[in-house]
Parts: sequence; structure tokens; C-alpha cells
Amino acid sequence: MTDILSDEYFMQIAINEAKEAALKGEIPVGAIIVANNQIIAKSHNLTELLHDVTAHAEIQAISSAANFLNAKYLKNCTLFVTLEPCQMCAGALYWSQISKIVCGAEDEKRGYRAMGGKIHPKTTIKFGVLQKECSNLMIEFFNKKRT
Amino acid sequence: MTDILSDEYFMQIAINEAKEAALKGEIPVGAIIVANNQIIAKSHNLTELLHDVTAHAEIQAISSAANFLNAKYLKNCTLFVTLEPCQMCAGALYWSQISKIVCGAEDEKRGYRAMGGKIHPKTTIKFGVLQKECSNLMIEFFNKKRT
Repeated sequence: MTDILSDEYFMQIAINEAKEAALKGEIPVGAIIVANNQIIAKSHNLTELLHDVTAHAEIQAISSAANFLNAKYLKNCTLFVTLEPCQMCAGALYWSQISKIVCGAEDEKRGYRAMGGKIHPKTTIKFGVLQKECSNLMIEFFNKKRT
Repeated sequence: MTDILSDEYFMQIAINEAKEAALKGEIPVGAIIVANNQIIAKSHNLTELLHDVTAHAEIQAISSAANFLNAKYLKNCTLFVTLEPCQMCAGALYWSQISKIVCGAEDEKRGYRAMGGKIHPKTTIKFGVLQKECSNLMIEFFNKKRT
């Protein structure tokens, strides 16, 4: 059983978001933002449905959390995301000055580390939380697409 | 006089957008997207007003243009933007596969080249169109802020 309020606990909620994306035919990436152990934003990738390349889970979560807080800086907030952010999302997270990012699967091709992007010096980042579950979602999705 | 439909002509319209931003107390960055010599999106920075770090002129322009075209890829489109895109906006432009980017002022500190981001291999980029006018908008804005 997963401890409540652990990184794994919150990542599981992000995974549930990713599954919502998959049900809509979207690449399964989910994200949540947590402040003081409270979930203040939940989102999943909607690029196909919205015909909008900017509708990544992280971008939506950042906008929602900022709206909830009525503040543009996400200080004392943690993002849980099932896939390593891309360059665009790393850039948005940079501007948000978010305190912490927790990632599930790595993205060796399009992740911000491969693309050369940067996160803010005030932000700490942790990789590999429920990595296998997060990766499997992606693998299953693309396997289904192929068949 | 500026030739109609020249890069300078369209950049002047982006500059007018940047001036709109300044009037609202926003860092003066403006953007337009042009397809077949028609302006399909116009926007300016709204990060302060919306309390949203993702509300850069380029992100809004990409979403608007995609909405107009009902398509997520901005093929055969050109973005005119008064300031070199940041990492986030370069990432969004990367995903959009936009054909061409025309920039005014360079951003030596926070531009995508300084931050290590990438644009799409299908995208061509041109710097320095009405550079002085675009830079002056920024300089005037920050000078006013200081006084």
C-alpha cells in the first residue's frame, strides 16, 4: 500500500490523469500540482482534442494552479508529472519558479534534458517515481496505435 | 515607407501589439502569425493581467492560429515577434512545426539560444527585423519602471 501524501501517492493521481488522456486518444501524460499537501490543479494532455500543441498537461496545470492561487509564481508548489517535461514545459516551469518537480518516466528524445532546456535554479527535480507504471502507459498507447 | 507585405510591414503590426502590452503595464512583446499574407493571429504579453507565466505573446498566437486553422500544425505560417522567443515559446514553436519565425530584438539573457532550447529543423528563423524599434520598446518600458 502506498503511504498517503508520499510522492508515489501523488504520482498515482497523475497516472490516473494520464489514463484519462489515453481514453480520449491523447498521448497519456498526466500532471497535478500540490501545495501544502493539497491538490490545486489536475490535468492531462489535450493536444489532439484542442488542436493545440501548447495543451500539454504541465502547461494546463501551471495555468490552473496560478489561477487557483491568484499568483503567477508557484512558490511552495510541487508538480507531479508522469513524463519528463519537454522544452516548452520546462520553460513554463522555469518562469513559474515552482519549488519542486517530480517525474515518472524519462523522455530520452523530447525531454528538456535532451533538447537542451533549463529549469529554474530555485527548482529541485526528482526522477523515476513510479517510472515503470508511467513508461508502460506510453508503451501500451503506442503499441495500440500501431495495431 | 514600408513595402506592404514585407517583413518590416508585418513586424510593425507586432510592434503595435507590443505597445498595447506596455499600455497595460506588461513587458512589451507582441506577436502576429501570418498565413498566405493574411494575419490569422495577433497577441501581446499578458502574464501580469492573467497571473499566468504561460501567457507570452507567442503561446497565445500559436493557440489562436491553431484555432483559426482548426489544425495543430502551423505549416506555411510565419510568426513575427518583437523579441526572440524564450525556451518555453521556442518549445511551443517546435511542436507547431511553424515554417518561419521573424524576430525583432534579441534576448541575450532569456532567449532560447541562451537557454539552450531548439527550434524545429523544418523552421527557418530570421533575426533583426526592426530590431532597434523592438529593443527601444523594452528599454523605455524598463526605464519607466525604474523611475
